[in-house]
Amino acid sequence: MSGPSVVALGGGHGLAASLAALRHVTDHISAVVTVADDGGSSGRLRREFDVLPPGDLRMALSALTEDTEWGHLWRDVLQHRFHGDGELGGHALGNLLIVSLWEQLGDTVSGLDMVGRLLNARGRVLPMAAVPLTIRADVMGQDPVRPLDISVVTGQVEVATTTGRVLSISLDPEEPPACEEAVSAVDEADWVVLGPGSWFTSVMPHLLVPGLRDAIVGTGARRLLTLNLQMHTGETEGFSAENHLEVLAAHAPDLHLDVVLADPRVVTDEKLLRRVCEDLGADLVVTPVAATDHPGQHDELRLAAAYRDVLT
Amino acid sequence: MSGPSVVALGGGHGLAASLAALRHVTDHISAVVTVADDGGSSGRLRREFDVLPPGDLRMALSALTEDTEWGHLWRDVLQHRFHGDGELGGHALGNLLIVSLWEQLGDTVSGLDMVGRLLNARGRVLPMAAVPLTIRADVMGQDPVRPLDISVVTGQVEVATTTGRVLSISLDPEEPPACEEAVSAVDEADWVVLGPGSWFTSVMPHLLVPGLRDAIVGTGARRLLTLNLQMHTGETEGFSAENHLEVLAAHAPDLHLDVVLADPRVVTDEKLLRRVCEDLGADLVVTPVAATDHPGQHDELRLAAAYRDVLT
Repeated sequence: MSGPSVVALGGGHGLAASLAALRHVTDHISAVVTVADDGGSSGRLRREFDVLPPGDLRMALSALTEDTEWGHLWRDVLQHRFHGDGELGGHALGNLLIVSLWEQLGDTVSGLDMVGRLLNARGRVLPMAAVPLTIRADVMGQDPVRPLDISVVTGQVEVATTTGRVLSISLDPEEPPACEEAVSAVDEADWVVLGPGSWFTSVMPHLLVPGLRDAIVGTGARRLLTLNLQMHTGETEGFSAENHLEVLAAHAPDLHLDVVLADPRVVTDEKLLRRVCEDLGADLVVTPVAATDHPGQHDELRLAAAYRDVLT
Repeated sequence: MSGPSVVALGGGHGLAASLAALRHVTDHISAVVTVADDGGSSGRLRREFDVLPPGDLRMALSALTEDTEWGHLWRDVLQHRFHGDGELGGHALGNLLIVSLWEQLGDTVSGLDMVGRLLNARGRVLPMAAVPLTIRADVMGQDPVRPLDISVVTGQVEVATTTGRVLSISLDPEEPPACEEAVSAVDEADWVVLGPGSWFTSVMPHLLVPGLRDAIVGTGARRLLTLNLQMHTGETEGFSAENHLEVLAAHAPDLHLDVVLADPRVVTDEKLLRRVCEDLGADLVVTPVAATDHPGQHDELRLAAAYRDVLT
């Protein structure tokens, strides 16, 4: 296999699903990963060592692991979580390994490349920014007693689970430096793939890093956006498919898309959705990509087939 | 290179020095490592997860690492210690990796073999027992006010740093099961090498694991004992070279040695030392093996030369 050069943007399980599918389509994959997580093992490591949160980077590397006995074993070891509630309980070994490599090599990208070599990963995993980030959101009705009040909610975990309606997000620091290798990857790509993933906390943050946003807007690559299967998570309660596109466009007014990929289940008004896509310059492709047994999750092979049809 | 099949017994820095030297002499090395450490990162992991203390195993694997860029990088990452006094501070990444492999694979020896493959280690590292051990020592004069009283001191750290005189040691559990692969390695070896290392807490514990002691006593291999360069550490304060041999013999009356290797600096009465060696069946070889700049440490190449002359 060879295939087009693809940069996949996102974080968490959404990006991992996208990468697992892309592995069936091309050898040339770069993942550009959010670095705003402040929960769990990653949050503890940020607080203890002031490093990039490694968890989403680890998951992306695991998703790109080559299908060999060696690769699978090391992937499983990197995904291993210590049990119990002691000082190690809840930490993923891969997070600890990544932080050790960063301290040993003194360089973020080299450390991630070494983990990629260990896993025989197909492709490269890069952070979206060179510094750890904090997400802030303007949220309406966070306090149910005052449903029209707007308040600021801080941190990925708090934003992702808010009971109010997220209006907009910003980053702290406000204009963080991009990861240079991520910018180069976007510049040189044939395709840039956004989503699926937690919309405000995994998919949109890339557009708030100035150097990366400029690259995404200015690249000669075509741009595919994959919509989520679950529209109504905490941070997007009440959002239709159209709302997802509108809020993304509001945060990056210059962004042009070429293709929007949607599963039939999330299309409630196809005519309206198609019109919102056209406003962004995009064709709408509606095709089944959900897993049979878990309709809220992308099916690796169906998503691979959809990507193949669009990207190649 | 090929060379004789050598099993090196010990723990900590002493075993690591021996292994680093043996790598110059033979490709066929098995390290059999004490599992009684209860201090530092290893002690914390024992208490949190009830596993074998991994630290001495990690050090032995590091000492056997192949001289390649890949091997050196991963060795340095495994030896990396987290800084600070947070929940990870003081832990060695390699200890955490070994425990994760044990939990992932459900087998001690397979986990250590995987780390060996990662490092391209020359040889194999095995634990001396299948369960974590606690060292107990009968110590005279632990309480300076009652210099002739005998008390029991428990744990490797306490024994290694006692201010009293260690009379004898025992293990808890008293008759632990040996690691089967370690017993086989001793059975099939050309040479068994004991020491150098902390005498009561790293060198002698092997002789208190019944299955391993029987293998060491009964093997057709020849037996080399390397004396320490520092006679008077906490646990051996006031011990001459002869005392080291006598206390070892007292704990394993059936043990026959073929060669005792000593640096000239530790030989204060060569005639007496030679007679004590003869009582054990051993020739005494006196040859300089200390490092020029650090006379308390073995010089890798001088020790390698001495091993080569004896073993091949």
